[in-house]
Amino acid sequence: MRYIVGVDVGGTNIVVGTVAQDGSEIVGVETVPTMADQGADAVVDRIVEAARRSMARAPGKEIAGVGIGSPGPLDTKTGVVLLTPNLGWHNMPLRDRVSEALGLPATLDNDANCAVYGEWWRGAARGADYVVGLTIGTGIGGGIVLHGDIYHGASDIAGEIGHMTIDSTGRRCNCGNYGCLEAYASGPQIAARAVEGIEAGADSTLPRYVEGHLGKVTAQLVYQAAHDGDEYALEVVRDTARLLGAGVASIINIFNPQVVVICGGVTLAGDTLFVPLRSEVKRRAFKPAVDVCRILPGELPGTAGVWGAAAVFIKRTWGRV
Amino acid sequence: MRYIVGVDVGGTNIVVGTVAQDGSEIVGVETVPTMADQGADAVVDRIVEAARRSMARAPGKEIAGVGIGSPGPLDTKTGVVLLTPNLGWHNMPLRDRVSEALGLPATLDNDANCAVYGEWWRGAARGADYVVGLTIGTGIGGGIVLHGDIYHGASDIAGEIGHMTIDSTGRRCNCGNYGCLEAYASGPQIAARAVEGIEAGADSTLPRYVEGHLGKVTAQLVYQAAHDGDEYALEVVRDTARLLGAGVASIINIFNPQVVVICGGVTLAGDTLFVPLRSEVKRRAFKPAVDVCRILPGELPGTAGVWGAAAVFIKRTWGRV
Repeated sequence: MRYIVGVDVGGTNIVVGTVAQDGSEIVGVETVPTMADQGADAVVDRIVEAARRSMARAPGKEIAGVGIGSPGPLDTKTGVVLLTPNLGWHNMPLRDRVSEALGLPATLDNDANCAVYGEWWRGAARGADYVVGLTIGTGIGGGIVLHGDIYHGASDIAGEIGHMTIDSTGRRCNCGNYGCLEAYASGPQIAARAVEGIEAGADSTLPRYVEGHLGKVTAQLVYQAAHDGDEYALEVVRDTARLLGAGVASIINIFNPQVVVICGGVTLAGDTLFVPLRSEVKRRAFKPAVDVCRILPGELPGTAGVWGAAAVFIKRTWGRV
Repeated sequence: MRYIVGVDVGGTNIVVGTVAQDGSEIVGVETVPTMADQGADAVVDRIVEAARRSMARAPGKEIAGVGIGSPGPLDTKTGVVLLTPNLGWHNMPLRDRVSEALGLPATLDNDANCAVYGEWWRGAARGADYVVGLTIGTGIGGGIVLHGDIYHGASDIAGEIGHMTIDSTGRRCNCGNYGCLEAYASGPQIAARAVEGIEAGADSTLPRYVEGHLGKVTAQLVYQAAHDGDEYALEVVRDTARLLGAGVASIINIFNPQVVVICGGVTLAGDTLFVPLRSEVKRRAFKPAVDVCRILPGELPGTAGVWGAAAVFIKRTWGRV
């Protein structure tokens, strides 16, 4: 049995783990801050150190290689990250830098692709041939897994489901477009919508959670307040469900998947989010497509991207996961 | 060289043609009115008669079978049309009815899938591995062709791109959802938006084209008036381009295709539509995805669905087109 180091490079943290080739276990999970402002070399050093620590926690295991997930756009063939505003990288040969430092073969894929692939391999979408996933955090990423393979499209950009327009004249998105799903339902945008309502006079206990500093409202606090019975916060979560529902309904009409898996902090909202989300989708999407599709929270919080990055290495090296 | 009869069943017309297996020619193209109100038996009879006339115009050719494209939802495996409000069918075994009447093997697929498959085989998207298409007429259908195969999803519903939400609180769509692309950019909806503006006081020559009977305004007349220099009609076409552009940008961010092919009457608008459409997409979608994607009008007006229905038969019978 060989092991693969999975690396999930995020804007805030890098998560690393050592994964058994048969998916039976993950060991040596390490989380380190990314600190992208220290420059690309420092980030590579931190990835390499975290990978070494993770491997050290899997003594005696044969390590076959490293699978890396990173924000994109990137080129899966050359292993180069083309451009990541979050990390400040431009044409960064991340795969080969990590591969050379560790003396191991490596693969590179998009972070959201990896998270959804992880959920397909060992999480909520296990065994499904048609899977679409969203990763909701600072932004909204997406991944498409068809017949056990990540769908990359013509130039490795495919799966940007967070940048599907749900309101063509709506909120400006970080990507430059208007009305993207991400502009409504990412963590920061959920918080921003809550704050906008409070500033417009909505009655809510949310300001008490942040001692009046509305800039400190987060999506997590909105879920917390909703859970604690704040009617306004509950309304913000339900609005989020409706907006996400419009996006997920489109996904279902287009892809006719068996599973839509939703990963990231947003899953902390639990049924408060998922119950109205499923209702909204049912109202909007084609019945014969809704009938065959489950909408599920991810089952691998924190490590989906690590599992998936390792699975990408396995798939590309041995042809099947 | 064998030939295949391609049948494209539409709400208004049935188009039939006899197609060479190698795609080198189509002969005996026949168009007959569908007259769905006469009932399913009468429609099947008309399909069969049209197919016989088409084959008679290909004397001496060996006919291998029949490929049928029909509105759906339908089951490609059983050949049954599940439900078509347009045609009034419910669990209609169209494939076997036609097959038995003609004494030839037959296949069934969705009409929009067939049109896009036809454009991939012999039209604007020839040779592309990643193709998404829209068919804009009474409604908006869609098709996805990946590596030379139609993408059907888990239950043959995939590709309903016209029912992607572009305005989550927008116009009610025939499908029951709100703000679908179809609710803005189908032929009747282009006409409806033009009429709404005129009723609200827009200055336009359009009423003259219909002798004041605004109910007679069609999308074609809007293009005609735009072509003749009517500023308001031009604005309606540009609005259509913007709305379509929001949808096509989402498609490009999600599928990262090499070609988006747009079929149907809307292509008559020509550059008046396609120039602002391409600009809008460029403004909205991810640059590395836009850079590899051509947005093209279909090249097989009237017969794309026939070519594609024949191609489906070829693909399923011999494994490759």
